[in-house]
Amino acid sequence: MKFSFKNDYSEGCHPNILQVLLQSNFEQQAGYGEDEYSLQAKKLIKEKINNPDSEVYLVSGGTQANLIVISSVLRPYQCVISAAPGHILNNETGAIEATGHKVLSIETADGKLKPSDIVPVLESHSNIPHQVMPKLVYISNSTELGTIYMAEELEKLSDFCRRNGLYLFMDGARLGHGLTSEISDLTLERVAELTDIFYLGGTKNGALIGEAIVINNQVLQPDFAFNIKQKGALLAKGRLLGIQFMELMKDDLYFDLARHANQQAMKIKNALKERGVEFLADTYTNQIFPVISNDLIKILSEHFEFFVWKKMDENSSAIRLITSWNTGDEAVERFIEIIKKEL
Amino acid sequence: MKFSFKNDYSEGCHPNILQVLLQSNFEQQAGYGEDEYSLQAKKLIKEKINNPDSEVYLVSGGTQANLIVISSVLRPYQCVISAAPGHILNNETGAIEATGHKVLSIETADGKLKPSDIVPVLESHSNIPHQVMPKLVYISNSTELGTIYMAEELEKLSDFCRRNGLYLFMDGARLGHGLTSEISDLTLERVAELTDIFYLGGTKNGALIGEAIVINNQVLQPDFAFNIKQKGALLAKGRLLGIQFMELMKDDLYFDLARHANQQAMKIKNALKERGVEFLADTYTNQIFPVISNDLIKILSEHFEFFVWKKMDENSSAIRLITSWNTGDEAVERFIEIIKKEL
Amino acid sequence: MKFSFKNDYSEGCHPNILQVLLQSNFEQQAGYGEDEYSLQAKKLIKEKINNPDSEVYLVSGGTQANLIVISSVLRPYQCVISAAPGHILNNETGAIEATGHKVLSIETADGKLKPSDIVPVLESHSNIPHQVMPKLVYISNSTELGTIYMAEELEKLSDFCRRNGLYLFMDGARLGHGLTSEISDLTLERVAELTDIFYLGGTKNGALIGEAIVINNQVLQPDFAFNIKQKGALLAKGRLLGIQFMELMKDDLYFDLARHANQQAMKIKNALKERGVEFLADTYTNQIFPVISNDLIKILSEHFEFFVWKKMDENSSAIRLITSWNTGDEAVERFIEIIKKEL
Amino acid sequence: MKFSFKNDYSEGCHPNILQVLLQSNFEQQAGYGEDEYSLQAKKLIKEKINNPDSEVYLVSGGTQANLIVISSVLRPYQCVISAAPGHILNNETGAIEATGHKVLSIETADGKLKPSDIVPVLESHSNIPHQVMPKLVYISNSTELGTIYMAEELEKLSDFCRRNGLYLFMDGARLGHGLTSEISDLTLERVAELTDIFYLGGTKNGALIGEAIVINNQVLQPDFAFNIKQKGALLAKGRLLGIQFMELMKDDLYFDLARHANQQAMKIKNALKERGVEFLADTYTNQIFPVISNDLIKILSEHFEFFVWKKMDENSSAIRLITSWNTGDEAVERFIEIIKKEL
Repeated sequence: MKFSFKNDYSEGCHPNILQVLLQSNFEQQAGYGEDEYSLQAKKLIKEKINNPDSEVYLVSGGTQANLIVISSVLRPYQCVISAAPGHILNNETGAIEATGHKVLSIETADGKLKPSDIVPVLESHSNIPHQVMPKLVYISNSTELGTIYMAEELEKLSDFCRRNGLYLFMDGARLGHGLTSEISDLTLERVAELTDIFYLGGTKNGALIGEAIVINNQVLQPDFAFNIKQKGALLAKGRLLGIQFMELMKDDLYFDLARHANQQAMKIKNALKERGVEFLADTYTNQIFPVISNDLIKILSEHFEFFVWKKMDENSSAIRLITSWNTGDEAVERFIEIIKKEL
Repeated sequence: MKFSFKNDYSEGCHPNILQVLLQSNFEQQAGYGEDEYSLQAKKLIKEKINNPDSEVYLVSGGTQANLIVISSVLRPYQCVISAAPGHILNNETGAIEATGHKVLSIETADGKLKPSDIVPVLESHSNIPHQVMPKLVYISNSTELGTIYMAEELEKLSDFCRRNGLYLFMDGARLGHGLTSEISDLTLERVAELTDIFYLGGTKNGALIGEAIVINNQVLQPDFAFNIKQKGALLAKGRLLGIQFMELMKDDLYFDLARHANQQAMKIKNALKERGVEFLADTYTNQIFPVISNDLIKILSEHFEFFVWKKMDENSSAIRLITSWNTGDEAVERFIEIIKKEL
Repeated sequence: MKFSFKNDYSEGCHPNILQVLLQSNFEQQAGYGEDEYSLQAKKLIKEKINNPDSEVYLVSGGTQANLIVISSVLRPYQCVISAAPGHILNNETGAIEATGHKVLSIETADGKLKPSDIVPVLESHSNIPHQVMPKLVYISNSTELGTIYMAEELEKLSDFCRRNGLYLFMDGARLGHGLTSEISDLTLERVAELTDIFYLGGTKNGALIGEAIVINNQVLQPDFAFNIKQKGALLAKGRLLGIQFMELMKDDLYFDLARHANQQAMKIKNALKERGVEFLADTYTNQIFPVISNDLIKILSEHFEFFVWKKMDENSSAIRLITSWNTGDEAVERFIEIIKKEL
Repeated sequence: MKFSFKNDYSEGCHPNILQVLLQSNFEQQAGYGEDEYSLQAKKLIKEKINNPDSEVYLVSGGTQANLIVISSVLRPYQCVISAAPGHILNNETGAIEATGHKVLSIETADGKLKPSDIVPVLESHSNIPHQVMPKLVYISNSTELGTIYMAEELEKLSDFCRRNGLYLFMDGARLGHGLTSEISDLTLERVAELTDIFYLGGTKNGALIGEAIVINNQVLQPDFAFNIKQKGALLAKGRLLGIQFMELMKDDLYFDLARHANQQAMKIKNALKERGVEFLADTYTNQIFPVISNDLIKILSEHFEFFVWKKMDENSSAIRLITSWNTGDEAVERFIEIIKKEL
């Protein structure tokens, strides 16, 4: 079997989670998220963001979190603003539109939205009532391109949204990776202060399943649970989700796992940089996009699985390498070895 | 802690499932249901229904299965016919309507639909195009009342649906319990022959999570996966679902677990019957609805958890007792003991 | 051609409306409801309800009004409560459900809702978040059965709704007929005080097209126009709608037309009563439901068109007769003549 | 009052239509489109397209036609491809998304789609089932920019769609103007042969209200009327729509009106061209986009109403002038006079 750098959800989950699944298996617990583990997970998350007034809901995956949050927050005529590589735009089979809402796409260089990207969208949507009303700004941290928001960037965006009556929603499928990037100056607590809603991704950071939606804006809290049930996202055995996040939130496991993934990616990145390889984007998280020759791609493909992301010219392409909480040193070293030998 | 007879999803999962989760945890597997376990689970299900042309999809829960199937099958102006205690009617927060479709409710004595229940619905929906078009008949086996379809009943219903251009969809959240009831003469294979779509419930029969949707009518198969993704139901770590059903489908585990649950309920039922207790419905699955005095309810409540289902008169109510794959002899015997003592 | 008592939209419109269509035809007017006629119509309606803070929107028809109002007012998980013969329940092809909302049906004797009808619905929808949340009460005046709300009945219902956080929405497709019924003690002004939203039907009372939605609850006013545009209901030549309501609202034309329709129906009703005929419902508006012999139905059918509404027994049925703003004395007298001759 | 060149729906309707409204006003007619006038209008349209097997439905406006057609044709996971200035993209308040479907936007130079524009969209939507499935190509003729499809262009597009399993839907809000353009070589009959569905716009070409949807692809015909009713588009007094199209379809009135509008626009265009004025797009229909100095815009604004469409530089902008079936010579000549004087 070739080692896969295709994504960060190839393996199962962190052993601590399995351990609690085993220990608790025969306990009778309340259903639908009222079990002790879910309650404990929610408590830990609120402590970590230092906001007892936020509300936390556990759901199964990112598309589910996105569609529930957005359809819950918006009125029928309101729409979403998203950077062009946003996951909701092109990778979720129209899940947001299926709930009735348009998603406006904005081209960006690095997958991140700035206030100056949003101003023209607001200006060009002023023909009331003939156009959708932009109401929610959707961002990801880290982004689909592996880039991250620095504290000042998020502060400016948050401030802009508040002054313009826009909700700010952060897709945190890879929030752990974003916050533990070596260049990040953002904290989880600050994310909670600056966004109306965000979620902590479990699936891509060591859980078997699960994203934890955190609602900071109290206007958006009432009745949220109805939306979860209606969209088919309320698991009868909510303990499954509770146990994932209870364990991830203990000590700093969530961040340790993400930091490990980032570090493994950085090792490969640095090895490539030393050999003069260029990158599609300058990332410091667990996704890297080196531009290499087709010949090298062929050689690497004999040993590893990864996606060829974008053809650059006749002779070279950018590939995408993703490391995970479970990417071991051996695979990384083998990869670097080949690089060193071939470049 | 009191033992709970509230539902069949209080415990975790059958140990075999945990075992495979442990063994396979560090394997790298393809995402989104392309993992080996999901493929194997689907293969086993097709073998059990003896129909290689059916298609199988694994999703997380019953509401999710119901809304995906129904919204996939119907055109915008078509609606569902359901017996009045149908789960989609009153227990899913309007999940079906949220996808745009009306659910017509039919009062029945026993929670089961007969052709003669449906005829008047078709007749009263003939004012084209001013009324919704009935197109899908939704049934459950076992039903919300614990009753089951006998083979002849399902055959007549299936035949009626085919002659009238109606799809027949069976909610099988408790299909195991339905088929292993001591009075059942239906087989899983026959269910697959007689329905257009059905699902095998995992959550209520020993899985941590998961329902297996089986599409028998080939007209309804194309592109079904798009609907699963769009509704947020395609788990990145599909292995989690695959492992549940791979294990449940091995040998007869799925049916053994359901049969056990039924038998535990029947022990209690028989003890109650011997003492002259009447029941709200005459059930032979893992749900029973004895009508007992308020005094006895009070005594039992000190030892067990259960739902008081329906007030019958000033002095008595029907309670609902549900047993599960994991309901042990001890709890059952203790319950019977109290009954014997008090009645 | 036989004279038709089938409905109140068989003819064109009141001649005053045509007159203004002719006079104004070559004027250039602003589009999308910003024309002088629409503005004037809205002004007259606000004067008639004596509430300058209400907002008025003109749309084409009743189903359109119903689906726009309801989808605008409700959050995704909220539902409607309607008396069983409600137009939205069975005569609009699932238009409300198509916007995502369930409509709960309540059986009533006379098509009218009382607080005591609603209490059990609220009580049986308390399993949060597993059930839809009742939020809007939909009533019609006059109802589908031709019955009307007396002032005290509407006051009690309104009071109940306000105390229970429910919106009260009156479908006024036949509001003119309801308010000018000889037994009515309700006024238009009072309707506006007691409801959150209602509409004044034009189509069934002398307009070619049009219903005037009146939003009294200021919480429900913001951004309403977006919903109208999004549902395809914002006519480019809004003048067409404006002229209808400007003319109907001048002096008392709207009420005069409805009163005429009612009176013609009452003439027939009284003639039938004198002969001992019974009625399905005791109505005082332009819809009557006499129960007559099949033989008489046959004879009347040779001269008039009408619906046979409900089979009562082997020998008799209730028929539905509807009179309109334009039903002349001749038709009424001819009908009565036959009655007198045959009974 | 200044004369308005703002749009083609400022005036009422062609006098012939008013004439029939008057003559027929007191006739009793069947409701919901079963009146004689609607039947006759549909018959005339089928004759004009020379296809008795097409089906025709009359609705009120363009947004309504677009949302009904698209939601009727597509499965939940399918989406629309539209040229970027498409009316559904930016001028209908998200009406299409509100029915659950994404609209993909394609940048074009002239508002028209070519097969080569669509190929990359299909290629970039091949990650099944993670992306929406492109299924319907939406075009307008004439387009939002006033440009038109030549016969060969439409043939190639139609052929491409058929080979790729895509439906071709033409928004014909200004189809009259497109087909009577002095450079057009397309016929109405050919449009019907090359599209799966299209509509003939009435509102912008001399009707008070109405668009005639024509379904040529028989696969898309069954049950279409249900969608019209469900979306609130089935007028009780369908005669209003029937009379519009019966009159427009008599002789060549529909085309005569559009040709007149085009000719008036061409007179102004030619006068401007003679003076060396450039245009944003080279159009031959009733919409022209001359680029003129801000000074000239100021002078013209004193006499006429029109939209300033796009700022070109500090000193000049493109304006949009639209002529209609009722734009008289006097206004046109006055406009040209000012041009001649000032340029």
